[in-house]
Amino acid sequence: MIPDSHKDLLENAYPATVGTTMPDGQPQLTVIWTLYEGDVIKFSTREPSQKVDNLKQRPQITLMIIDPENMYRYLEVRGRAAITQEGAIDLIDRLAQKYMGRGYYDNMDPDRAQADRDQRVVVTIKPEHVVANG
Amino acid sequence: MIPDSHKDLLENAYPATVGTTMPDGQPQLTVIWTLYEGDVIKFSTREPSQKVDNLKQRPQITLMIIDPENMYRYLEVRGRAAITQEGAIDLIDRLAQKYMGRGYYDNMDPDRAQADRDQRVVVTIKPEHVVANG
Repeated sequence: MIPDSHKDLLENAYPATVGTTMPDGQPQLTVIWTLYEGDVIKFSTREPSQKVDNLKQRPQITLMIIDPENMYRYLEVRGRAAITQEGAIDLIDRLAQKYMGRGYYDNMDPDRAQADRDQRVVVTIKPEHVVANG
Repeated sequence: MIPDSHKDLLENAYPATVGTTMPDGQPQLTVIWTLYEGDVIKFSTREPSQKVDNLKQRPQITLMIIDPENMYRYLEVRGRAAITQEGAIDLIDRLAQKYMGRGYYDNMDPDRAQADRDQRVVVTIKPEHVVANG
């Protein structure tokens, strides 16, 4: 579903903005790292969190990546999110390698690292509607 | 409400991502130019459009600006949108000066410019909740 012309926006280590909906209907926007693989987009977050609460109520999620070199070139992906614990540690490490060039837990205090690992989840976005601009 | 530490993200000519909610509850994200003035954030769009339809149903709107130099520094602004026609042509020209260094209608075909002017509206976001990160 993602056109070849805009796949670089997901493949490069660019920030994405992801939108969920709060219980009162207000959009919540946060910045995430993305991994694009097998026609789905994955990101890592922790539970409990507002974002995960929002997705459990309404799995509808939308992602925006703007080309840092050209703001008129962007990709909006609307889809539904699935949340799983399986693969959560592997994913955050792969994302950290992509975005920081190192393991996520490298140099982290062991207690803090364990607490983080215990909360990590994978959010998988299955694209349903794509807008590729520019 | 916007902390001094993050006002530059609104003052510079950076793209913002703005989220509204579709009738079916799906977040809609688009890229906008912003003008920050008098404690409100203004942007320009056209009516009819999905974004304006969404805001007429649910005025809740959320904006995200990421520092292009540092993706861990960003500003999320949640608020409510008011839509007006007054000042719409002045605003799009000021935004074009800020982002492109020229008037918006310069060199535009006159018929196309008139059609665009007829549809221009101002969206004014009154911030209610701000997250400043980094």
